[in-house]
Amino acid sequence: MTKSVDEKDLERHRAKMANRKKAQDAEVAEKTVEKGLLIVHTGTGKGKSTAAFGLALRMIGRGKRVGIVQFVKGAWHTAERDALERFGDQVAWYSMGEGFTWETQDLERDIAAAERAWAKAVELMDDPSFGLVILDELNIALRYDYLPFDEVVATLKARRPDLHVIVTGRNAKPALIEAADLVTDMTLVKHHFAAGVKAQAGIEF
Amino acid sequence: MTKSVDEKDLERHRAKMANRKKAQDAEVAEKTVEKGLLIVHTGTGKGKSTAAFGLALRMIGRGKRVGIVQFVKGAWHTAERDALERFGDQVAWYSMGEGFTWETQDLERDIAAAERAWAKAVELMDDPSFGLVILDELNIALRYDYLPFDEVVATLKARRPDLHVIVTGRNAKPALIEAADLVTDMTLVKHHFAAGVKAQAGIEF
Repeated sequence: MTKSVDEKDLERHRAKMANRKKAQDAEVAEKTVEKGLLIVHTGTGKGKSTAAFGLALRMIGRGKRVGIVQFVKGAWHTAERDALERFGDQVAWYSMGEGFTWETQDLERDIAAAERAWAKAVELMDDPSFGLVILDELNIALRYDYLPFDEVVATLKARRPDLHVIVTGRNAKPALIEAADLVTDMTLVKHHFAAGVKAQAGIEF
Repeated sequence: MTKSVDEKDLERHRAKMANRKKAQDAEVAEKTVEKGLLIVHTGTGKGKSTAAFGLALRMIGRGKRVGIVQFVKGAWHTAERDALERFGDQVAWYSMGEGFTWETQDLERDIAAAERAWAKAVELMDDPSFGLVILDELNIALRYDYLPFDEVVATLKARRPDLHVIVTGRNAKPALIEAADLVTDMTLVKHHFAAGVKAQAGIEF
């Protein structure tokens, strides 16, 4: 199916790309700051936690340690945890939630779980052996005011300068977005649940 | 910092969550279809490829094989590949690009690379040992018409019924979105490059 392209098009393409290369190089040269990033993955679409785990993989490949604290997921089994456990001590995983609020139906228990998870998060952020700390679904705990929001944001801002932190979950609050370096909204365009497809192993869990 | 909550609030919360649990259970019960999904990660934000790699991790944790074909990235070293190589034969990784178009500046070479990558993609999709195939940056090759779009979409639609496929890259075409089961637009809210922060190991590569 090889496409044939005429010589004039090839030359036009070459010239255009040479210009683009110059612009790109100039842009890259302008960027000189190195710093630990505060990253937020929010929105109603799929991919907030999985993109955090994908970055974990990249960090592991660079020889760094990654800490993960889950604020909603609790004792239940997840395949991503099984997979990351193969990296041994490079990954420290803490699922400290009690499950969805509609499962526990117990506000005090949810608040206590969020407070324990936040204490663990602070411990990991203070430990210089970690290059990346993922605070999975922290936005949920913040949205329901299970944690003192201003204190959480102040602690995130005061983190070690070389530490990358990812906060995931829907409904990120504006002041967290303001404090962050990188924010992506995983925007739902189309979801298979709406077409009657169930949660499947390897995709949802 | 434990918050105190009064008994009336606790009871109100319990009743609300019990209702929500009923609604959730009913919703889950309606979803009965199991099928391999065609997933698209598009948009200008960060997280399209990393979310795909995060799903790879989940699939690996379920004992499935994952195939990855990269349409733009070529020979250069990436940390996510290093990390995934630790899973041995469970991951088959093919970086078949020649780099960004402004690096090659050679349209024929870009087209030939896209055709080789697509042939590899078809081979992996036909191999029943794979549970998930990731076609990283395929959208770029489609956007520039390096591949026959209709043929690509028809082949994706005709895949094995149990095969999950993820297509990543900006500017997903409408007909691909139409064919997909799950589409997320990684929407750029805020990017550290705009603040002069450079690409850093473990975050961008």
